[in-house]
Amino acid sequence: MQTDTDTKLDTDSAAMALALAWAAKGMRITAPNPRVGCVIVRDGVLIGAGHTQPAGQAHAEIEALRDAAARGNDVRGATAYVTLEPCSHYGRTPPCSNALVEAGLGRVVAAMGDPNPLVAGRGMAQLQAAGIATDSGLMADAAYELNIGFFQRMRHGRPWVRLKTAASLDGTTALENGESQWITGPEARQDGHAWRARACVILTGIGTVKADDPRLTVRGVAMPGLGAPRQPRRVIVDSRLDIGLDARVLQGEPCWIVAARPDPQKLAALRAAGHEVIVLANGAGKVDLPALMLELGRREINEVHVEAGSKLNASLVREGCVDELLVYLAPSLIGAGQGMFALPPLVRLADKAALTFHDIARVGADLRILARFTTQQST
Amino acid sequence: MQTDTDTKLDTDSAAMALALAWAAKGMRITAPNPRVGCVIVRDGVLIGAGHTQPAGQAHAEIEALRDAAARGNDVRGATAYVTLEPCSHYGRTPPCSNALVEAGLGRVVAAMGDPNPLVAGRGMAQLQAAGIATDSGLMADAAYELNIGFFQRMRHGRPWVRLKTAASLDGTTALENGESQWITGPEARQDGHAWRARACVILTGIGTVKADDPRLTVRGVAMPGLGAPRQPRRVIVDSRLDIGLDARVLQGEPCWIVAARPDPQKLAALRAAGHEVIVLANGAGKVDLPALMLELGRREINEVHVEAGSKLNASLVREGCVDELLVYLAPSLIGAGQGMFALPPLVRLADKAALTFHDIARVGADLRILARFTTQQST
Repeated sequence: MQTDTDTKLDTDSAAMALALAWAAKGMRITAPNPRVGCVIVRDGVLIGAGHTQPAGQAHAEIEALRDAAARGNDVRGATAYVTLEPCSHYGRTPPCSNALVEAGLGRVVAAMGDPNPLVAGRGMAQLQAAGIATDSGLMADAAYELNIGFFQRMRHGRPWVRLKTAASLDGTTALENGESQWITGPEARQDGHAWRARACVILTGIGTVKADDPRLTVRGVAMPGLGAPRQPRRVIVDSRLDIGLDARVLQGEPCWIVAARPDPQKLAALRAAGHEVIVLANGAGKVDLPALMLELGRREINEVHVEAGSKLNASLVREGCVDELLVYLAPSLIGAGQGMFALPPLVRLADKAALTFHDIARVGADLRILARFTTQQST
Repeated sequence: MQTDTDTKLDTDSAAMALALAWAAKGMRITAPNPRVGCVIVRDGVLIGAGHTQPAGQAHAEIEALRDAAARGNDVRGATAYVTLEPCSHYGRTPPCSNALVEAGLGRVVAAMGDPNPLVAGRGMAQLQAAGIATDSGLMADAAYELNIGFFQRMRHGRPWVRLKTAASLDGTTALENGESQWITGPEARQDGHAWRARACVILTGIGTVKADDPRLTVRGVAMPGLGAPRQPRRVIVDSRLDIGLDARVLQGEPCWIVAARPDPQKLAALRAAGHEVIVLANGAGKVDLPALMLELGRREINEVHVEAGSKLNASLVREGCVDELLVYLAPSLIGAGQGMFALPPLVRLADKAALTFHDIARVGADLRILARFTTQQST
């Protein structure tokens, strides 16, 4: 395993920053587990590092201990920096806190506590009981962002939902005739694939399937050394099961199709083609979107990436199912055309959906805006 | 005159940055002249500084020489940093290049050459002929931005036109019922007044006058030590002279009202009230907007600040009269409502109006985007 042996880690912050970088290496492989990194440091020198492996395989702490052992480094008395409190329970793997105690670490610094009710402070308490010095809360914000979906699911039983849209500066996503390729530039489209890649689910609606016939796969996002990482699960909201069996999205890996009033024959055909149909109707005969989010949480989906049309976008927003918007704005004016959200006219400005701008970045010639809804308390 | 005597000016860049700060002090008083700053430095010590005064009064170089003299500083052999090439012609005041030569400066560094055809390199040439060392081009971008309207007028005979709009993240500027106060927060509104303040003209249309009855004055923008600086001239595009004599915009300083088909009686009434009516019709019986911009250039207007509705906004954009957009985006979704630009639907995306994002900033909870049209070559 490659480690950064030349880096001098003089401060807790420098070591934790490196642990976060290791955590990010697991971006596309750890789900449904969180992305966690661990570095072990003695006298400012890195002696072991690792990140969580796919579910059922080793967690970050075990990887770092193995790395230290493989390089002949003695970890007794050293400090381990982990981006999340070590687990203390038997899940798919034995508890990491046990392994850290047995290895004789002198100090463990965690970026934040684990919101998993099966851990929730017990990991750090177990280390303290064994005489290991502990600290918690260093660079907690960055650690939180890395696993925002995992934390959302642990706390609220549903995934973190990120809705992506791309528009001209005046808010138009497509011409009235439907033309929309390409409003934003190649860098923004590539950046969009990186956001797709980190999600567990890519969600769209039947309108987009019919209009654009997208594949909704991740393409062109390199993951060095990982071969072919998993593709996110494609989920299509399709109340009446209008999807054609020849839709491109149905040609690859199995999809989940969410219906409200499925035609039994169509349902059988989709199942025969290897896809799953989930039936979740609300009183209006449409898909019950909040119930869908809870169902996705039950299926251990951490992050949902929405790429849909203005109607499903608006329904998701109105029904409180969206946590943040990922908006790419192109430096252009288009004027009349399709908007981002087909929200009905408001009578009072005070009723507008309130957000906060979380992050603003330039991506190529375009602007990327990450905005979070303030009316939902997700943290 | 206050100068920053404690600042150690070890480098040309540090001195020029200070000269630019001095130039900015003239933001609201120098028009139609450019905002220019000058600092005189010897051995890294500031010995004189000044900025251009209102038209007909002293330019920056003269102010800096006077400041040095008032403080008993000898400028012979010292270096003067000016944000624009010193003038070499007799205009409203004698040439500054003469004064610098007579004062015995050793070196003059200019941020950029003067595009005024009456100067255009002659200022620097005159200094060189007198044996003064010269440099030009240091921090030229910042110097250009400070006087973007003056340069536009010198090169193209028309002002720099900045169109301001404020919208929700999904591009809506007002509800369908017209309610628009307040989409953005107090910091953005205050920032908008600072942009109004630097303009020579605030331009709107009869639609906005009828809908909002605005005053279009600059309010709450502090200018320490300047008393009550000039208010920008208000210009109203009103093809048929529909404006009511009781409109708030007509109650203060005289306005320029631009008409295409003026009713003679209404025209006389407006003139009697102290306002000027400019008649500029195009073939369609509307105000000829490009001709208006040339007329404003002829009247020595450097910067125009547009605050209008979606119809006039769109006409100005379509007719190539806008150089940049000043867009405030609020962190909210409004959905259906009024847009920024009532542009007709495009048939091909390739026909969209292309911009570049020039500057992105957060202002309070909002986002401020300065975007420039790429189809117009203004520099």
